[in-house]
Amino acid sequence: MSQKSFQDCYPDEFSHCYCCGRLNDHGLQLKSYWDGNETVAVFQPRPYHIALPGYVYGGLIASLIDCHCIATAVAMAYREEGRAIGADPPLLFVTASLQVTYLHPTPLGSPLEVRGRIKEALGRKVTVSSTVSVNGTTCAEGEVVAVKIPERGSFRTGHADR
Amino acid sequence: MSQKSFQDCYPDEFSHCYCCGRLNDHGLQLKSYWDGNETVAVFQPRPYHIALPGYVYGGLIASLIDCHCIATAVAMAYREEGRAIGADPPLLFVTASLQVTYLHPTPLGSPLEVRGRIKEALGRKVTVSSTVSVNGTTCAEGEVVAVKIPERGSFRTGHADR
Repeated sequence: MSQKSFQDCYPDEFSHCYCCGRLNDHGLQLKSYWDGNETVAVFQPRPYHIALPGYVYGGLIASLIDCHCIATAVAMAYREEGRAIGADPPLLFVTASLQVTYLHPTPLGSPLEVRGRIKEALGRKVTVSSTVSVNGTTCAEGEVVAVKIPERGSFRTGHADR
Repeated sequence: MSQKSFQDCYPDEFSHCYCCGRLNDHGLQLKSYWDGNETVAVFQPRPYHIALPGYVYGGLIASLIDCHCIATAVAMAYREEGRAIGADPPLLFVTASLQVTYLHPTPLGSPLEVRGRIKEALGRKVTVSSTVSVNGTTCAEGEVVAVKIPERGSFRTGHADR
């Protein structure tokens, strides 16, 4: 993964997200990349990201799925327009809904591999599905409905979903 | 809210959760309480819990819903058995699935009020619904399917979902 991550290409003003913003010093700084038509991010949970000792906290998994799916929607939208991620005018998506199913306990220690793929795109609404795996075992799967913000300024007047 | 929170009654070994464990110094230390037949928790997001500047990060909201709903399932199970929360043998629940719908942008600054109520209880499976509000506006709603761990030791051998 020598290429720049999606999030590293976001304009500064959209790079403060707790989960994936490169400018949020307290955040998780998730980095997502293309892998063919799928996307992938690898995240190393910190020792305190636990539910029961020895297992990764489910809310962290939900957060990773959320941001990786949004990043996937953004990257796909730029790809379809033949533009570089982050190029002006920016393409922004917010989360309308998030669903996560926890399939297996997620052991703490090894990196989590988060994968994403576009399931459906209907107008402004893009559904992205995702899995989270540890050492080859899929521990959670999820789905995010991402909605494109139609105009650059609309989130500033309070129409963003998050 | 002068009574002890649910989480303050959990046994030490189950008090390390990143979102609600009183023994996790790096965590969010969410505290949930009864309010009639509903449950309530109030959480003050930190300045860095942002999505876009000025708005609360959606993954934080998902995390609060997750842990508050699990705490609601735990508290209800103890109440039904007429036992104090945390009394031995402990009643444990794990998250099987989590669903969150983001209704409105959640402004950062004011405390978030998380409410929970039991929607359905079928054997070991309890569905808990939840809302997250800021200054009286419901910004997100969610649902957690919580599953009771049947035997105390089972999570230690890897059957916990998180």
